[in-house]
Amino acid sequence: MNTTEPTTPEELEAILARADAAATAWAQVPAADRAAALRGVADALDAAASDLLPVAAEESHLLPGRLAGELTRTTFQLRLFAEMLDDGGYLDARIDHADDAWPMGARPDIRRVLEPLGPVLNFAASNFPFAFSVAGGDTCAALAAGCSVIVKVHSGHPRLSALVGRVAAGALDAFGAPAGLLQLVFGTQAGREALLDPRVKAGSFTGSIPGGRALFDLAVSRPEPIPFYGELGSVNPTFVTKAAAAARGPRIVDEFIGSYTLGAGQFCTKPGILLVPAASGMVDALASSDRPAPARLLNDRIQSGYVEVLQGLLAHDAVAPLGSTDGSLDAPPAPTLVATTAEALLADPDGLVTECFGPTALVATYRDEDELLAVARVIDGQLTATIHGEDDDAIAPELIRLLARKAGRVLWNQWPTGVSVTYAQQHGGPYPATTAPTSTSVGTASIGRFLRPVAYQGLPAHLLPGALQDANPLGVPQRVNGALAD
Amino acid sequence: MNTTEPTTPEELEAILARADAAATAWAQVPAADRAAALRGVADALDAAASDLLPVAAEESHLLPGRLAGELTRTTFQLRLFAEMLDDGGYLDARIDHADDAWPMGARPDIRRVLEPLGPVLNFAASNFPFAFSVAGGDTCAALAAGCSVIVKVHSGHPRLSALVGRVAAGALDAFGAPAGLLQLVFGTQAGREALLDPRVKAGSFTGSIPGGRALFDLAVSRPEPIPFYGELGSVNPTFVTKAAAAARGPRIVDEFIGSYTLGAGQFCTKPGILLVPAASGMVDALASSDRPAPARLLNDRIQSGYVEVLQGLLAHDAVAPLGSTDGSLDAPPAPTLVATTAEALLADPDGLVTECFGPTALVATYRDEDELLAVARVIDGQLTATIHGEDDDAIAPELIRLLARKAGRVLWNQWPTGVSVTYAQQHGGPYPATTAPTSTSVGTASIGRFLRPVAYQGLPAHLLPGALQDANPLGVPQRVNGALAD
Repeated sequence: MNTTEPTTPEELEAILARADAAATAWAQVPAADRAAALRGVADALDAAASDLLPVAAEESHLLPGRLAGELTRTTFQLRLFAEMLDDGGYLDARIDHADDAWPMGARPDIRRVLEPLGPVLNFAASNFPFAFSVAGGDTCAALAAGCSVIVKVHSGHPRLSALVGRVAAGALDAFGAPAGLLQLVFGTQAGREALLDPRVKAGSFTGSIPGGRALFDLAVSRPEPIPFYGELGSVNPTFVTKAAAAARGPRIVDEFIGSYTLGAGQFCTKPGILLVPAASGMVDALASSDRPAPARLLNDRIQSGYVEVLQGLLAHDAVAPLGSTDGSLDAPPAPTLVATTAEALLADPDGLVTECFGPTALVATYRDEDELLAVARVIDGQLTATIHGEDDDAIAPELIRLLARKAGRVLWNQWPTGVSVTYAQQHGGPYPATTAPTSTSVGTASIGRFLRPVAYQGLPAHLLPGALQDANPLGVPQRVNGALAD
Repeated sequence: MNTTEPTTPEELEAILARADAAATAWAQVPAADRAAALRGVADALDAAASDLLPVAAEESHLLPGRLAGELTRTTFQLRLFAEMLDDGGYLDARIDHADDAWPMGARPDIRRVLEPLGPVLNFAASNFPFAFSVAGGDTCAALAAGCSVIVKVHSGHPRLSALVGRVAAGALDAFGAPAGLLQLVFGTQAGREALLDPRVKAGSFTGSIPGGRALFDLAVSRPEPIPFYGELGSVNPTFVTKAAAAARGPRIVDEFIGSYTLGAGQFCTKPGILLVPAASGMVDALASSDRPAPARLLNDRIQSGYVEVLQGLLAHDAVAPLGSTDGSLDAPPAPTLVATTAEALLADPDGLVTECFGPTALVATYRDEDELLAVARVIDGQLTATIHGEDDDAIAPELIRLLARKAGRVLWNQWPTGVSVTYAQQHGGPYPATTAPTSTSVGTASIGRFLRPVAYQGLPAHLLPGALQDANPLGVPQRVNGALAD
């Protein structure tokens, strides 16, 4: 059997039935054992690196060093989530003892904890064949939460997906996890059918705005709508203040070239728009900057989509090339810059504030810093927004405040590419950056996507989940009568 | 101007513009000042009780004692949320210091905190003219979170709504809150138009399944879909084990009668289905039980809807009256019980597991306890599920586990009506109980509905929100490098 062929309806039914049974079983596995299984998956993937990396490079055209780093990130993430399971704070365990003196009337004994949602369907991304794919972020978060996972494989790296799936599922088996805890489906139709199946209780996705919106619309159209965590599109605007341009314009230019061309510009956090002072000399420096050599894009569909968006930008009345455009539309494409003004951008945000997935960015010149505030007001939801400024920049507080309303992450004198997996990371943002602005797809808080609260009222201790018992046998943080217990 | 007339398009536009401006201003008001304003609203409502209660009784037909208790609950809730604002734990403040030794690669300084979503549109409920209305749960949570609020008034208590709106807005004004922080709209059309307005960033609703689903569908159909927290329908099944029936059947019958007829059965947590052993004598006790006198329902629409659902149940082949049905279909209706079997319920869950909003409950007899587990497996999502059992009941662990997958709150030897506002309360559950199983509408955790995370990367201390500064000037709980700080 060729395991990358489209999943048939019969196969899909079996996969869904196994996922449902596995979710029931896995939800009852103690967190410490789930943590051990996640570590087992990480170890197995690390051990299989020499098998996985060449296939990843062949299918994605990404550079070996980048892919090795991405695999490291992926296995680190599994281990970090295992640590979080050991800690138990993610359960948000709350215990309210019965209290006859409660001011609104006698209070019963109520205890609340977060429990797994059920089977999760994860649509893998094209641009992170490890970190947002079979064993990537949402899979890790869902398994940690106690959910089973079905991954809809991305058509850009099917063989790698099958290989990672075998390694990861094998490691889960070795730790005694239920059969069918992590399964794959191939093909658009099978993915859509799985999303509509009542056994699936949450969906996640990373990709384009049209693709993500179509799946979101399906998820919310179900007889039982389900949470759908779609990460769609972001231009990640970057604002350079006059003071910063004066203090270190050339350095900002160099770093910007590095960031927008990283991975051939195929990151959802690529700084796609750079706002610079018109009179700063930064425009000339950008026009004459050295740019990296052309690099092959992920696949033909990405290449043709990139060319289409770039052609649209170049055809815009208010847009001109910035420096050479030789080879801009070739495959592989030469990194490209195009220029406009903040005034034009404010006049036509729909036409100019558009994600161009690949090695192109739009440089917009502004005359006075009020235009920066105006741009911050007009942009749609973003994954990130970046400011390069000086500590005493008068515009900084208001610009930060405006951008925090639009973006999931606000950066200061750094670059948005290279998303670190940490406790405080936030990778998300208002629509169209995501369909779920209240959640994150990166960092330990992402486990919250796949959990729902359950309260238990009046249960005797022996029937309560361990995390809610007064004796606290699992040693998890508990909020008792409103205050964190020691 | 008669303030309960349908809001005109021109008025609505002004309301939305004010709500947008108020959200921007209120989000910057320190939490301590927001807390003071909430306490001010509570004090003002308490002081106005003698004006409010007669209007509430006249419009809702609820009993004075019940309404007074509901107002107490409402003002207590405002004060409890003020307390939570003072504590600051709800911010989930996370600080990751830069760390060059971070295993996946050098980590930047990242800090994450929860911030307000923006203007919230709250559709008030019919059955809680105070606690789920103008100054009720979602309003309190949204104001506490730092959002502005527009309440779509329920047509069942327009004059009370206008009165509460004036008292609450007046108190907010007195505390220097921005104009338009809490506003009302009247009429179905204005509510729908407000929900579709891009300035509104979240919606909430308590009511029927068709009404809630229609609004949910609108909210997710917007160009920018928004979170919609709808509480729709629940039958709140109650399972009496054989051992419990044998030990204290008569007491359970008495308590059940009290719970399902409380407030004339007009609670979303009314125990609508009671499963009892066929051979226990409980059926006879239920048939011959004393029931309270008929009480007038909230309004004519509720009355006619109630009669329609009850007639449907009585016409079902597998349903028979349990005791007298004299006056069942009258206005006001006599409290009624109807009987079926667990077997019939399992054969036709769609026909029999249906919310009947008013003083009727369905008693289903079972032969063996395996049928209880089967019912637990077949029911849809619920706000609550209740077990009356003995501590050594063999069925208890499995029944609790199954019900925790279906319900937001699982009770043991208590009754689901009378929802206490506490830190650990969970009022929500899988669809159709709610459209947002990961959230709650009651208890301090409900503030999370109206917050979204924002991460700040690399910001100097003086540009960071206070909650994220190392010096912790606000004294809020901080999770630093993954661990809760002392």
